[in-house]
Amino acid sequence: MKINGQQYRTIWPDPADKAKILIIDQRKLPHEFIIESLSSVKEAATAIRDMHVRGAGLIGATAAFGMHLASIQATRGKLDTALAEGAVLLDRSRPTAKNLKWAVDRILETAGKANSDEEKRKLVYETACAIADEDAAFCKALGVHGCSIIEKISKAKGGETVNILTHCNAGWLAFVDYGSATAPIYAARDAGIKVHVWVDETRPWNQGARLTAWELQQEGIDCTLITDNAGGHLMQQRMVDMVIVGTDRTTHTGDVANKIGTYLKALAAHDNNIPFYVALPSSTFDWELDNGSDIPIEERSEKEITTISGMTEDGRIETLQLTSPETRALNHGFDITPARLISGLITERGITAANKEDIHRLFPEKAMS
Amino acid sequence: MKINGQQYRTIWPDPADKAKILIIDQRKLPHEFIIESLSSVKEAATAIRDMHVRGAGLIGATAAFGMHLASIQATRGKLDTALAEGAVLLDRSRPTAKNLKWAVDRILETAGKANSDEEKRKLVYETACAIADEDAAFCKALGVHGCSIIEKISKAKGGETVNILTHCNAGWLAFVDYGSATAPIYAARDAGIKVHVWVDETRPWNQGARLTAWELQQEGIDCTLITDNAGGHLMQQRMVDMVIVGTDRTTHTGDVANKIGTYLKALAAHDNNIPFYVALPSSTFDWELDNGSDIPIEERSEKEITTISGMTEDGRIETLQLTSPETRALNHGFDITPARLISGLITERGITAANKEDIHRLFPEKAMS
Repeated sequence: MKINGQQYRTIWPDPADKAKILIIDQRKLPHEFIIESLSSVKEAATAIRDMHVRGAGLIGATAAFGMHLASIQATRGKLDTALAEGAVLLDRSRPTAKNLKWAVDRILETAGKANSDEEKRKLVYETACAIADEDAAFCKALGVHGCSIIEKISKAKGGETVNILTHCNAGWLAFVDYGSATAPIYAARDAGIKVHVWVDETRPWNQGARLTAWELQQEGIDCTLITDNAGGHLMQQRMVDMVIVGTDRTTHTGDVANKIGTYLKALAAHDNNIPFYVALPSSTFDWELDNGSDIPIEERSEKEITTISGMTEDGRIETLQLTSPETRALNHGFDITPARLISGLITERGITAANKEDIHRLFPEKAMS
Repeated sequence: MKINGQQYRTIWPDPADKAKILIIDQRKLPHEFIIESLSSVKEAATAIRDMHVRGAGLIGATAAFGMHLASIQATRGKLDTALAEGAVLLDRSRPTAKNLKWAVDRILETAGKANSDEEKRKLVYETACAIADEDAAFCKALGVHGCSIIEKISKAKGGETVNILTHCNAGWLAFVDYGSATAPIYAARDAGIKVHVWVDETRPWNQGARLTAWELQQEGIDCTLITDNAGGHLMQQRMVDMVIVGTDRTTHTGDVANKIGTYLKALAAHDNNIPFYVALPSSTFDWELDNGSDIPIEERSEKEITTISGMTEDGRIETLQLTSPETRALNHGFDITPARLISGLITERGITAANKEDIHRLFPEKAMS
């Protein structure tokens, strides 16, 4: 998608040096646009853990390229050890994200098929690139499916603007390109459907205020920022036509782990008969867990709540204390939205109801495994 | 209640000069503790509109003392005009708050009974003092009733800590003393019941992060700050035993206007079978409106969302831009929690179900009027 009119992905190999992976450092957005170069698996893990990059798909792609960096850096005879150690390091960087483990496992599986170190390095690199390409392709495909829902609402409203609420950033910044929750919105815009997005600011990290609003603006999509508290009221006022969110992990039974606060919006949508959709590439499905309550929920630093960063009037990035110094805070990163509150899951293969039977029907090869 | 160990109310006449009313300027809390002196009804209206003071009861008391300042300042023969103009000015300062109009109307009604300007001024002042005293007394009384609910939960848990979630600040800082939502908590502490409070930070103005956490700390009550997004997850995890919130206006049919986001917490409490109580002195009831949806909802500046203030490391209060400069925001101050989601209303006369019949049974003199 576009930044200042120029086409970007969120992660790509340095064209000048395959031993370097370039990412957009999302911590400084929207105030500063910085491209960061990663040259080791350790740097990749740090970038994931400290949220230089974040979001389901992008975490997966960064982990995949992190494994590539591990393979590049491995000394003679130590390639398998380097990949195994890299896998552990990456796996530990964010606990809730499904795409992370999925990507690492896929790299390890592919590497296992190689007959030489040289071939192994090549396969790891090619698989990392494939994971990134597929992520973009899957997001684009789910955008087409999701667009059909927006189109229906638009028609029912006689072509009036469709108001879509989203939480956190499941935009292209959270993937390699297009995004999950935003892909149907970009597709609708391309199809000439009038859309407007309510962007939850998404405390404490403000992914909505900092990233989603910014990326929609860069693409010329009309949007309005709201506090996380506001969505229920707007739904009561019929100012929201549908909700689309992303997910960090979805069980094969349809329970959705997503940024904390998603559950509250799902409850409000349900209470007001407003469709609530979750968009995801199939790499985000967890085919083993039967209950959302078994998904590990990340706990992050209380400083993300008690302090905040932003830009001063004279253009400096500054950090402020928001509370008394004595204030303790609890910072869980995700919550679970039970399948019963979800109107449907938008995947690259089409839209499915959020239940085991329908999900397995759409992905029969996974259901068998 | 206490600040740095010393007893305070949130508003009081200057002992040295009755023509001045003292308030705590809540905009700088918890970083700076500033006592501000108001000497005109215009300053009182500004203090309400710009939130030097806020909260149901305190807005009422400030409006009452504002009318006193109008009466003091009125020139010869202009007292009635000054009171009428003061009433209009104050009425317009915050649209959702019921206590505001209630206090102004009560002052006007009392003033109407006077036979001379001198008597009128005296009655206005005495009524303003009475409104403040009653506010404190009603909050203290509702605290005793509310404490009985906490006590029951404590017994059911075998004396283990009762975890109470609250939204916004319906603490003593929102009233003249004790608070509404916090009064039962202070009463429980005094009764030796173990309590812990989950404090919603309450974007965008952060009443929870800045005021509730601070006032509970000043009183030695164990509390933890959470984002507004977190309550649903904590309820799913059974980490919340009950919710108590305040209200800015409650219809005599039991619909509750309170700080935006309250409705989302009520939905989550309902979905998890967790008791959800609203605490209010009867001055907050609207005896005319039958539907919560008819309560006017204040819209405030988008800058409350796109910028934020706090303290720098070197102790300066600074304001930061949180979003791209292009970002537009919508800032509704309140939402409506329908009566069906409310376990009960805690008033100075006792606890009632949130429906017309039961509310009228508890306040028969209002039901008749």
